[in-house]
Amino acid sequence: VLEPDLPAFLSSVEGVVGATHVLTDPEVRAGHETDWTRRFVGRTPAVLRPGSVGEVQALVLLARRHQVSLVPQGGNTGLVGGATPLGGEVVLDLRRLDDLGPVDGPAGQVTVGAGVTLTALQDHAASAGLSFAVDLGARDTATVGGLVATNAGGLHVVRFGSMRAQVLGVEAVLGTGEVVRSNLTGLVKDNTGYDLPGLLCGSEGTLGVITSARVRLVPGVGPLLGALVGFASVTAAVEALPVLRSAPGLRALELMRAVDLRLVAGHLGIEPPLTPLPPAVVLLELEGPNDLVGALGAVLEALGPAVVASAVADGDRLAGLWRWREALPEVAAALGIVHKADVSLPVGALAAFEAAVETTIRAHSPSSTTLVYGHLGDGNLHVNVVGPGAADDGPVDAVLELVLELGGSVSAEHGVGRAKVAWAARQRGEVATTMLRAIKQALDPDGILNPGVVVG
Amino acid sequence: VLEPDLPAFLSSVEGVVGATHVLTDPEVRAGHETDWTRRFVGRTPAVLRPGSVGEVQALVLLARRHQVSLVPQGGNTGLVGGATPLGGEVVLDLRRLDDLGPVDGPAGQVTVGAGVTLTALQDHAASAGLSFAVDLGARDTATVGGLVATNAGGLHVVRFGSMRAQVLGVEAVLGTGEVVRSNLTGLVKDNTGYDLPGLLCGSEGTLGVITSARVRLVPGVGPLLGALVGFASVTAAVEALPVLRSAPGLRALELMRAVDLRLVAGHLGIEPPLTPLPPAVVLLELEGPNDLVGALGAVLEALGPAVVASAVADGDRLAGLWRWREALPEVAAALGIVHKADVSLPVGALAAFEAAVETTIRAHSPSSTTLVYGHLGDGNLHVNVVGPGAADDGPVDAVLELVLELGGSVSAEHGVGRAKVAWAARQRGEVATTMLRAIKQALDPDGILNPGVVVG
Repeated sequence: VLEPDLPAFLSSVEGVVGATHVLTDPEVRAGHETDWTRRFVGRTPAVLRPGSVGEVQALVLLARRHQVSLVPQGGNTGLVGGATPLGGEVVLDLRRLDDLGPVDGPAGQVTVGAGVTLTALQDHAASAGLSFAVDLGARDTATVGGLVATNAGGLHVVRFGSMRAQVLGVEAVLGTGEVVRSNLTGLVKDNTGYDLPGLLCGSEGTLGVITSARVRLVPGVGPLLGALVGFASVTAAVEALPVLRSAPGLRALELMRAVDLRLVAGHLGIEPPLTPLPPAVVLLELEGPNDLVGALGAVLEALGPAVVASAVADGDRLAGLWRWREALPEVAAALGIVHKADVSLPVGALAAFEAAVETTIRAHSPSSTTLVYGHLGDGNLHVNVVGPGAADDGPVDAVLELVLELGGSVSAEHGVGRAKVAWAARQRGEVATTMLRAIKQALDPDGILNPGVVVG
Repeated sequence: VLEPDLPAFLSSVEGVVGATHVLTDPEVRAGHETDWTRRFVGRTPAVLRPGSVGEVQALVLLARRHQVSLVPQGGNTGLVGGATPLGGEVVLDLRRLDDLGPVDGPAGQVTVGAGVTLTALQDHAASAGLSFAVDLGARDTATVGGLVATNAGGLHVVRFGSMRAQVLGVEAVLGTGEVVRSNLTGLVKDNTGYDLPGLLCGSEGTLGVITSARVRLVPGVGPLLGALVGFASVTAAVEALPVLRSAPGLRALELMRAVDLRLVAGHLGIEPPLTPLPPAVVLLELEGPNDLVGALGAVLEALGPAVVASAVADGDRLAGLWRWREALPEVAAALGIVHKADVSLPVGALAAFEAAVETTIRAHSPSSTTLVYGHLGDGNLHVNVVGPGAADDGPVDAVLELVLELGGSVSAEHGVGRAKVAWAARQRGEVATTMLRAIKQALDPDGILNPGVVVG
């Protein structure tokens, strides 16, 4: 067994990426040492910016030779310390891998580099009259590599599935230093072995460094219709789920609460979107070509008196509805350090979770402020707690304990990172964790890729 | 390293499953020793029929202790020797694992045993007003375990994806004898580690014996409209793909050729479905709630003169259209031993493949008959060759060589089995094959599960 030799590694990397792409200035490094929540703060001796898969491979081979650990990083929009050098690792900044391949129109696919931002991918697809199915608030910063590595979800999972459903093929540099290319030609059906793209998707940089991906595109966005639909309680909104999900053309189904929307109204200095504001508000978005107004009307009629208020918008006014949803994380961040628990629940436990979560948090942090919202259609809620100090794990721990009691998942999006390793192990059980460790050992035998993430 | 001790293993298994579930009668065994094609014929000392996951676990632990290899088998409808005891393995017949869990209506999910047939699952879903998304010709025999293990595709992939898109959670007995249960509560979003259900799906019994699965259900089938749409050539049909795929409610998009439909007409003793019969016929199926006649009309109008003939059917007459498609494999089987190549091609290479495939086969087998049809929407063609002797690998090899030249996959459905190990290795390349071997070694360290399958 070799000892790590960081100096030898660092003295070799300039020969790979050039001096301008070895960043050691403390102020520059600082931006890579902390994640979006500011709750996870690490240290890195250097940030390396490879410009090609060949350079990534050369760096991983050097890292392996010198037993130096690497943390792959894209837009650094994670929330669970999954791309933070908490153990003093070297950061691999992959944003220079920003190739946008030509859109294959007949196949409805494109191959793009790991460093391409979600917005750049969406714009590229739109320029060919198509659309990329995943969308989320961090679109201008989050990169394809990070989206793939965390199996990102976002706003349209209810219609198109999460990243894994978009990723047909992947190129990655394994922990062994080998480059694997699997189905980069984008075959819709390829059953020649275990699903390597699907395995690398969601592996959080612990098995390989994703360098590019072949993704499916969906038809260009048709006419849209949005609605805010008010319910007397979260329970009533959950009970409406089967009807809401049946809405033709449904592509978003978000939950917001009156208590949180009042914070948004104060933050933006505007009146609440419905008067009086119902306790639970669902944001629905439908996409054509069918008669959207008629479809929405049929949904509202089927729900009958369960709907206590509603507002409809299309065209330019649709952004006004989304502003309420998108401002929620901004409001939380404006209040202070945000403790994030991004969790999912069985449909049957969603209302019980929402009813209990604030009491649970207050037991640990009496003066905290809690915001709860999320992707109702996927059983995925974002719990945001503001008030406790950055180092206080109490509130998130309390939320995750409640999630496990109710049969949910401690990570719906963003993955396990370093923050949720023990929680994820409890959730999945010993056999599954042993399986994960065996797979990790098989593909990254020296454990140099993102150590401490996913399986610890 | 232990030596295999089959007698010790066999003397212990009665204690697990009972004497009535240890089948050694040669005539009974024979049904488990040959696959559907009759091209792969093995031998087994015994067929074991466990009745619970506990019994499967006990058998795998015994097999591991005595170093005896096992071949998991469901409905035995495979085509590539993936469930055939070619090395004299013991067969695990999993059809007694036929539990149908209660349908979870609000979640739209159900947990079922590996031995449940596709028809039984479909009927069970229908009894709750829902539907299971995968359908294929072998529905009365194929089991959930086999569908999961081979990541089965079928007729509705263009709408709902293949099995992997349906499977939310899996229970399996690994090669270590451990039972893994991953997301059997069916959370839509669970990002607590590598995708174990997705990894086991498509692993062909080489990593674990699948004992049950949590699958998503889709809304009950709405009104259907079918059409046969004739084109002047396969090339013209492929060029129409973007328009055909855009049809609202599309749920099937199958390709048939005049030359093969004439064989069907002769076999069934009926007139061809279109007069004159165009060289390429696409079977479209659309599902409501929208105006299907209008939607189909818009598609045909958009295609303009590319459509040289068409016939539309709904209600009871729809089965008449499907009869043409479903009779194709029956006709092939009636002609003799069928050499099957179930392959996929990039969209841009489909027409070139179809144009070259018969010439390629005739170079090896001049007097053979070739049928080509399949799931056009997925780039997936079924090549059936009749004429060459059962042991003659020439025709399939010729087809697979052509597939690799054109950038396709040698296995679109049915997996790698034992028949395509070398071909799959060529297609995926050395690095990916090394990855697969490492994963296999990690989860089945003694190599007792389906040896020789997937990675050889």
